[in-house]
Amino acid sequence: MRSLLCILFFFSTFLQFSLAAPKIRHFKWEVGYLFWSPDCIENVVMGINGQFPGPTIHAKTGDTINVELTNKLHTEGVVIHWHGIRQFGTPWADGTASISQCVTNPEETFVYRFKVDKPGTYFYHGHYGMQRSAGLYGSIIVEVADGEKEPFHYDGEFNLLLSDWWHKNVHEQEVGLSSIPFRWIYEPQSLLINGKGQYNCSLAGHYSNSSSETCDLKGKWQCAPHFLHVLPNKTYRLRITSTTSLASLNLAIGNHKMLVVEADGNYVQPFAVDDIDIYSGESYSVLITTDQNPSMNYWVSIGVRGRLPKTPQGLTLINYLPNSVSKLPASPPPITPTWNDYDHSKSFSNKILALQGSAKPPVQATRRIVLLNTQNKINGYTKWSINNVSLVLPSTPYLGSMKFGLKGAFLNKNPPENFGSNYDIMRPPINPNSTQGNGVYMFALHSTIDVILQNANALSDNVSEIHPWHLHGHDFWVLGYGEGKFNEKTDMKKFNLKNPPLRNTAVIFPYGWTALRFVADNPGVWAFHCHIEPHLHMGMGVIFAEGVEHIGKIPNDAIACGMTAKMLMTGQH
Amino acid sequence: MRSLLCILFFFSTFLQFSLAAPKIRHFKWEVGYLFWSPDCIENVVMGINGQFPGPTIHAKTGDTINVELTNKLHTEGVVIHWHGIRQFGTPWADGTASISQCVTNPEETFVYRFKVDKPGTYFYHGHYGMQRSAGLYGSIIVEVADGEKEPFHYDGEFNLLLSDWWHKNVHEQEVGLSSIPFRWIYEPQSLLINGKGQYNCSLAGHYSNSSSETCDLKGKWQCAPHFLHVLPNKTYRLRITSTTSLASLNLAIGNHKMLVVEADGNYVQPFAVDDIDIYSGESYSVLITTDQNPSMNYWVSIGVRGRLPKTPQGLTLINYLPNSVSKLPASPPPITPTWNDYDHSKSFSNKILALQGSAKPPVQATRRIVLLNTQNKINGYTKWSINNVSLVLPSTPYLGSMKFGLKGAFLNKNPPENFGSNYDIMRPPINPNSTQGNGVYMFALHSTIDVILQNANALSDNVSEIHPWHLHGHDFWVLGYGEGKFNEKTDMKKFNLKNPPLRNTAVIFPYGWTALRFVADNPGVWAFHCHIEPHLHMGMGVIFAEGVEHIGKIPNDAIACGMTAKMLMTGQH
Repeated sequence: MRSLLCILFFFSTFLQFSLAAPKIRHFKWEVGYLFWSPDCIENVVMGINGQFPGPTIHAKTGDTINVELTNKLHTEGVVIHWHGIRQFGTPWADGTASISQCVTNPEETFVYRFKVDKPGTYFYHGHYGMQRSAGLYGSIIVEVADGEKEPFHYDGEFNLLLSDWWHKNVHEQEVGLSSIPFRWIYEPQSLLINGKGQYNCSLAGHYSNSSSETCDLKGKWQCAPHFLHVLPNKTYRLRITSTTSLASLNLAIGNHKMLVVEADGNYVQPFAVDDIDIYSGESYSVLITTDQNPSMNYWVSIGVRGRLPKTPQGLTLINYLPNSVSKLPASPPPITPTWNDYDHSKSFSNKILALQGSAKPPVQATRRIVLLNTQNKINGYTKWSINNVSLVLPSTPYLGSMKFGLKGAFLNKNPPENFGSNYDIMRPPINPNSTQGNGVYMFALHSTIDVILQNANALSDNVSEIHPWHLHGHDFWVLGYGEGKFNEKTDMKKFNLKNPPLRNTAVIFPYGWTALRFVADNPGVWAFHCHIEPHLHMGMGVIFAEGVEHIGKIPNDAIACGMTAKMLMTGQH
Repeated sequence: MRSLLCILFFFSTFLQFSLAAPKIRHFKWEVGYLFWSPDCIENVVMGINGQFPGPTIHAKTGDTINVELTNKLHTEGVVIHWHGIRQFGTPWADGTASISQCVTNPEETFVYRFKVDKPGTYFYHGHYGMQRSAGLYGSIIVEVADGEKEPFHYDGEFNLLLSDWWHKNVHEQEVGLSSIPFRWIYEPQSLLINGKGQYNCSLAGHYSNSSSETCDLKGKWQCAPHFLHVLPNKTYRLRITSTTSLASLNLAIGNHKMLVVEADGNYVQPFAVDDIDIYSGESYSVLITTDQNPSMNYWVSIGVRGRLPKTPQGLTLINYLPNSVSKLPASPPPITPTWNDYDHSKSFSNKILALQGSAKPPVQATRRIVLLNTQNKINGYTKWSINNVSLVLPSTPYLGSMKFGLKGAFLNKNPPENFGSNYDIMRPPINPNSTQGNGVYMFALHSTIDVILQNANALSDNVSEIHPWHLHGHDFWVLGYGEGKFNEKTDMKKFNLKNPPLRNTAVIFPYGWTALRFVADNPGVWAFHCHIEPHLHMGMGVIFAEGVEHIGKIPNDAIACGMTAKMLMTGQH
């Protein structure tokens, strides 16, 4: 009897491990600067293990990721944020400097250990200063667990990590943003697909409508495009993520429709489009069927939306095998929709709905906060503010200072939950001066929070910009988008409570509002911010926290700085 | 009786404070990047309180300096070293990253508090990565205490802080030095006097022998030269310091002899010269008498020595008042001696002797170490090594790890005290591969140490470079310079034990040796290194320590990183 039990035990254990056992996936990474030519122009790039972009993490749902990150920069600290991973139970692994952890200094190592609990398309990136813009990013692909199935079929997949690239180094960019007079970073020199672009030439150079030289990319592997080699009459999943510093992008594929099936790691009700808008911080999966003339190749193009574009399209090819990649498509690359055709953008955003059967939001919110987005001045410096407060992160990370109740680590005043009812969002601020702050929006654990993001006119007349807001530690339901100033009485009635999509990033359109709902169910301290890197650098973010008393044992490494270090070192807990 | 005592006490206290009481001098500094045009070309510069170079510290002997340094960089740590200040009793204030302290991270503040116990001409500078090259430096001038007198007379004084300047930012310089293939920083674009130079024009542009345009400096105050306004028939003290990253300099003044009276904060037997060589890390005071034709102005010129110069001379004027500064001297600026005229350099170095009555070195050394300087390869990277060990600093500062006896913080193996007797210093290394290390030369407290710095051929044939070695925490006596390989039997006899000068920096000439002696009387851990910043970056240094058990209470701030933080946070002292 006992040996039978043993055998049964062995068998069940074996089954578990061979079929569906989650794995711990170990990575040893070194962050360092490299000479690299992302767009055929050599520059200094922040890479990982000698490559740019960083290595792709492949995992299955339920796996634990263990990244041992060593800082090989010379004088800069570093952290890495795992964008879209909610970090349930591991808020210290969220990788946000001054929020979830102290930076890891040169020659030091920090271990990020967290679970990927949801299949989907994610990415990681630096979250300190403007190190994302410097090139510190890569992809995370989480497949369904063994034995599980995606709710759609595909024969193969490709990963497209999109970014924008400047020739001016980010230190100089940062100094300009913090200077009087203010110096804007302007538009990127290039758009990159998987870290590859072409600055001074075009893959589509010899179409009659092109003003660029044709690229000669012989030997230039660092900037030669990453081609998508396909077989005819198959279905492919394209995983598309945008880690741009600034640019909102539109992606189109010559002659092929795209069926959108995933957004930010959540399934959506499939819908077909000719092109997709993708904002910084977002990810999508689309399916394409290779049902076009198999003797041809087809363009994949990305172009700038939402800002008057001065950057050439980023290009690569879908290569129908066995055609040569040198066989160019019959016609030039798809034209990006006009930069300010916001109706096109809104139409796309409104098509994104949760897959039938997805979790629905609670019917009522416990609390609603309204966040006015304005461009401001503080002592002559140009800033972005939320309800007239521009975020300046404290030197002691919140996670430790809040858990241990350290006084004076940040402004303990509650930040404003709304703005003056007579504020005219259609005009530049009458009094553009705002204040600096770093207070925290504290939520009761498990409460339901509505956030109304309210856009407004910037400092110049007739300018209102797009801002993609990203929430750490949670997904939120996007309840709706609207024009003008949010009206509590009339607009709430229009909220989509039936099938709103779950996202971690949502855009506000010029002069409009966006309504989000989420459950504050993840003990920790979480950034919520505009994902445009220079905007965050200029203060465009807020801090959320919930269930701080339920935060587990924070690894000492994560809080060995500032006031928490002082506290731990003097033993006065 | 009691009231009389009170009055006496009051009077004596009053006297003390009003006449000779040392002061605590408080400074509040913020380190940050600035847009600045040191040589009329705009660049990003590391400055203090919005200025470049940083503010000059003026103090009197016996004063305490208290600098509250806040890091306003975006992602970089920072420290400041007080070059030439020995830090008796305050080794944690020496400002050397990984040696005396943890770096101060952005938005954090570190307080440097130390005594200036010796009159003289000093400077301060960043000592982390290559932040000195980025512009983080300034002057320290320590006058004699009230009631004391200098051993020479002067009517006024000027401060000349010399540096070299590159247009390529230091991050890119650092990456190049740590790359395969190796990328050298090459020669500086400009030489700066008090942070001011002219890149694309010359003050001496309209002399017939000039190939440069004449400068139009209207409105360009950041790069307009700092003129020395003098009255006729007076004696002036010029305090001259070199914080160059690379360049060895020669300074000359048209028509005026210089009387050298101070070197590195120590009085020397006065001697007159037409020009002085000054190496990175050195300081001099010279006296000039304004006894020339008072209707004229006169050049001050600096030029590159020891490397084939590709950098134009740095220039300013001695302006005899009431002449206009626009009145140019009758003849072009003094010509810098030929770059490789080492006899000229040696002749100058050999003239430097201690002022009569100065402290003499102990007659015998307790221990002698010989340090061979070689250029090497490690895994394809180009390095500098000392006795075949290239210095890589540990992440936990020595001061804490040694005081608390933490194992594994650095290589505990004693570093080599000599090199193979058959090493041919006249040829490139036969086996150029060396090793990395960070062991410590441990000295008995109060022992007398002789260091023989031995130069050799670099990696290329017929190349041997100048290296100015700087010792922290001590002055040393320079016992002599010699040619070729140091010979224990014959060369020791030639040591100057009668009036060797006390210095904190001494040069080794190509293919030569330099002998130093010092008393290990300062409990702490001290860097000894080539003061050429890229050479130190490439490993050209060693670590000395003595009396570690006598180190006082290290402020927690200085050791709140790495293994010392871990130890203090777990309470396991």
